[in-house]
Amino acid sequence: MIGIPSMRILKYIAVFTPEPWQGWGFGDQGSHDVLAGGDRRGMVMRWGDTHHPNLSETNGDYDGQFLFIGDKANARLAVISLTDFATTQIVANPILESDHGAAFVTPNTEYVIEGSQYPGPLGGGYAPIEEYNEKYRGAITLWKFDRAKGRILPEESFAIEAPPYMQDLADAGKLDSDGWAFVNSFNTERSHGGNLEGQPPLESGASQNDMDYLHVVNWKKAEELFKAGKTVPIAGFAVIPLETAAAEGVLTFVPEPKSPHGSDVTPDGKYVVVGGKLDTHATVYDFAKIKALIEAKDFVGKDPYGVPILDFQKSIKGQVELGLGPLHTVFDDKGNAYTSLFVESKIAKWSLSEMKLIEKLPVHYNIGHIAAAHGDTVKPHGKWVVAMNKWAIDRFADVGPLLPQNFQLVDVSGPAMQLVYDLPIPLGEPHYTQIVAADRIHAIDHYSPVGSNSLSHEKDPQAVDGGQERIERHDDGVHVFMTQVRSHFTPDTIRVKQGETVHLHITNLEQAKDATHGFGISSYNIALSLEPGEHDNVTFLADRAGVFPFYCLEFCSALHLEMAGYLIVEPAAAKVAGTPKRTGGRS
Amino acid sequence: MIGIPSMRILKYIAVFTPEPWQGWGFGDQGSHDVLAGGDRRGMVMRWGDTHHPNLSETNGDYDGQFLFIGDKANARLAVISLTDFATTQIVANPILESDHGAAFVTPNTEYVIEGSQYPGPLGGGYAPIEEYNEKYRGAITLWKFDRAKGRILPEESFAIEAPPYMQDLADAGKLDSDGWAFVNSFNTERSHGGNLEGQPPLESGASQNDMDYLHVVNWKKAEELFKAGKTVPIAGFAVIPLETAAAEGVLTFVPEPKSPHGSDVTPDGKYVVVGGKLDTHATVYDFAKIKALIEAKDFVGKDPYGVPILDFQKSIKGQVELGLGPLHTVFDDKGNAYTSLFVESKIAKWSLSEMKLIEKLPVHYNIGHIAAAHGDTVKPHGKWVVAMNKWAIDRFADVGPLLPQNFQLVDVSGPAMQLVYDLPIPLGEPHYTQIVAADRIHAIDHYSPVGSNSLSHEKDPQAVDGGQERIERHDDGVHVFMTQVRSHFTPDTIRVKQGETVHLHITNLEQAKDATHGFGISSYNIALSLEPGEHDNVTFLADRAGVFPFYCLEFCSALHLEMAGYLIVEPAAAKVAGTPKRTGGRS
Repeated sequence: MIGIPSMRILKYIAVFTPEPWQGWGFGDQGSHDVLAGGDRRGMVMRWGDTHHPNLSETNGDYDGQFLFIGDKANARLAVISLTDFATTQIVANPILESDHGAAFVTPNTEYVIEGSQYPGPLGGGYAPIEEYNEKYRGAITLWKFDRAKGRILPEESFAIEAPPYMQDLADAGKLDSDGWAFVNSFNTERSHGGNLEGQPPLESGASQNDMDYLHVVNWKKAEELFKAGKTVPIAGFAVIPLETAAAEGVLTFVPEPKSPHGSDVTPDGKYVVVGGKLDTHATVYDFAKIKALIEAKDFVGKDPYGVPILDFQKSIKGQVELGLGPLHTVFDDKGNAYTSLFVESKIAKWSLSEMKLIEKLPVHYNIGHIAAAHGDTVKPHGKWVVAMNKWAIDRFADVGPLLPQNFQLVDVSGPAMQLVYDLPIPLGEPHYTQIVAADRIHAIDHYSPVGSNSLSHEKDPQAVDGGQERIERHDDGVHVFMTQVRSHFTPDTIRVKQGETVHLHITNLEQAKDATHGFGISSYNIALSLEPGEHDNVTFLADRAGVFPFYCLEFCSALHLEMAGYLIVEPAAAKVAGTPKRTGGRS
Repeated sequence: MIGIPSMRILKYIAVFTPEPWQGWGFGDQGSHDVLAGGDRRGMVMRWGDTHHPNLSETNGDYDGQFLFIGDKANARLAVISLTDFATTQIVANPILESDHGAAFVTPNTEYVIEGSQYPGPLGGGYAPIEEYNEKYRGAITLWKFDRAKGRILPEESFAIEAPPYMQDLADAGKLDSDGWAFVNSFNTERSHGGNLEGQPPLESGASQNDMDYLHVVNWKKAEELFKAGKTVPIAGFAVIPLETAAAEGVLTFVPEPKSPHGSDVTPDGKYVVVGGKLDTHATVYDFAKIKALIEAKDFVGKDPYGVPILDFQKSIKGQVELGLGPLHTVFDDKGNAYTSLFVESKIAKWSLSEMKLIEKLPVHYNIGHIAAAHGDTVKPHGKWVVAMNKWAIDRFADVGPLLPQNFQLVDVSGPAMQLVYDLPIPLGEPHYTQIVAADRIHAIDHYSPVGSNSLSHEKDPQAVDGGQERIERHDDGVHVFMTQVRSHFTPDTIRVKQGETVHLHITNLEQAKDATHGFGISSYNIALSLEPGEHDNVTFLADRAGVFPFYCLEFCSALHLEMAGYLIVEPAAAKVAGTPKRTGGRS
């Protein structure tokens, strides 16, 4: 979360990796209910390569309710609530190993699109790489989102099988093109490396053809087929087979120039802008023409997998010469487009109506993604554009071989673009951002009612009211019902026997804004952060005897250091250790 | 790493917790050699409550070579190299469960001081809390640092046993007071909670006495005793028993007012300033007086553990009335002191020579620690002070119940303090900072020679030269010797059999500044970040059959997406999965 125009980083949201400072992944809610949901095929996954955060939309504009983000490395998708900036769900795609075209929402967040990146046998099976063409596939997954529940519903989601090209960025149509999605691709050469085995590396193998294929997806039609049961189950997930998708008009190809990247629908939904990493143009596809060609079945041929191909010239509005390595395009409120030029390290401002370049602004350096205020919605705000530059090199003091990236704020309200500010990105960069008006976000100050579970936002079944603190022993172990309030825990002494399972149920009774308390136990790898009114549970085995302090991890008051207690684990075999005899105290 | 005066966060240094964006804790170097070094008593520890970063010093001033930081929660200490901002060592204190007075270096970084916080049986044994007075103890540990090796040497380190008060902040003497250390404490009441058992909670139990004890430690004398073998082994660690420390003048107490906090030695080393959480004064102790009283054995009594106590009035230069809740004090180059007032949310500027308050500046809000440019060295620079405020509340846009802290930059070069800037801290705050002149830091652009191990800074035994890439099978598994260079891996196809152990040895051949490459494998929880010239190794069991893409995690070039390859794991029992028959490709 970065403020604009201050360019101050206000918050990091924990998603795929445990973060002790906010207790993420150490308590039951984060670790069991959310992170574990993203584990794949028995492998505990604790990292993600976050790509393409996307805000939930209503009628094609940000509604400030939810945020979605993909994990390219492991084909996963996360849901984040914007009332408390908590990750509430992670789903692992059962048929893919990696994605890239995620997360992109449809105009009313009916679905979250997740396009694959590197092909493989769908469902995670094995096939020798020699059978790449026959057995390896990509897929475009449409995850059903239930806004009321705030959850993705896997059972109501489906995927569309795609050829083993490398599907890339995606964008959903809007207004005129609502019901459609546009996914570009590279490596129609179907190169798969093998450079120690006499094959070309991907970088050259995938760069032979002059054209790859823009995937034009009719997702409303696909939804009909899914609901009509015209899918096959792969790893328990509903997949529309490639030949069905091709035959039913769900999937159509349009050629796109030289290693395409970026697929961005214009605010009016009438056009799709595609850049080319090894090209110098932005290519503007005309959706009305594409739709007419598909309806007329006016194809120039089929790809090796039977997918119909449209004529390039008949499908486009035109091309605009921008410069070296155009990647991504966003829009303002005056009909202008802003395209990142990676190789040239510039932003190109150009007119969509006049189809001509207006101005180029140098950025520092190697801009990848680009963001504009509501710049990928039906109602761009103008005023601000942010260049997300991958390299900083000489812009900041040296902080070792691993340097920050550089987000540059650009004022686009005047006739000429003006570079306003450099923001070093001190952690991994999110790979794309979206800029939403602050007044669209309605964050809570504290959880209500007191004792709320941060996932359900309802009172946790184990919530503890003030005065009801207690320790109970049940068949499943010791249950400690604890409260926190400045500046003590109740209880602050916990006595258990070695080998007992301990269930901590902790409620932060505070209701004042910012009155967060932490909870950490020495040597037991437990760190919680409980915001005001929040309740969390954590279970652990007291397998080591000894005396383990616990204390508040947030500087909460003048007597914060005194907000502490002891977990006393009595040895199974009562041997008593301690300090050497001759130093026994004389109290 | 925060720039001043820009107040831009330049970098987060990964220490106690795995961080995928910089590959920390997923490769062998980070995970095995460093993080595992901090595991305690068989428990894998993957979080820390970082307290008190301290820069290495030469002659009492920062030399820009190393950074040390403690983990309060688990009594651990980390060493960070400032040439590449990499954590190179974590040591777990074998006799303590928690610390607070860490990390504080002696004037030539001979030792790093780690004072305990919450008492317990030393060495991690069990003792019922009813035996708190007899069996629970604190300790002040002096970790020997070897500057040439850049490592802490546990076998040359030792601890001084302390009574079961709660030892708190520490500071090493300098110049006149070199060879001494000053550790304050609270809870001389020896309250240990039990609020569900009819005892008062710590916060009130520990706040009964008007005075607690400043621990005056003669560490040079302690070093002599250690070298003379006058220690007892506890959990294999050398400990000077309490009565020896008391008898030999290693440990002496001076009363300090009401819940003291902060123990800061003045630049000339002549005085120690202590604040009191429930007091309104800064108390200035006169080291010359303290030393004379100790040498004359002029004591007013002993504590219950036999530690001699000095007379309060005879030990101090005086007290300065500052306001509510004085905590920490730093210094400028004009003889002024700056003390944080937590309860009052102000910085108090006062004159050390005139012993009087000069000015108070409101900060926002609840300032804890305070930092000044070289402000705790023998040569403060003046100009800048930073207020580390715990609460932000109304200073920034709402980002949910968990709000950022607020670091405020204050210009102290003029007659009146001027608030210059608010910096929200979007991740857990480091709990104290130090401000070092940028020209003291000499960071490397890339590792040299190519193939360097980031811990040894020497060529890794498994480093791979360009042209020497290969795959070898040995008794211990498959060894893949891989290189990375824009924009490919060699090899980019890895074929193994299910159940084989895979050892990846990866060298980033780049030597250009900022030319970092990542390495991630889908579904195998492996994420590396290799800076230019760096080599890392990672070992994993290929226990799941299938096709797993690997790719570069850094946007390294126009063809970054093509920098990828495949790990092909052939099933033990050769069953071949893949896509449904009827969708077989026609290539």
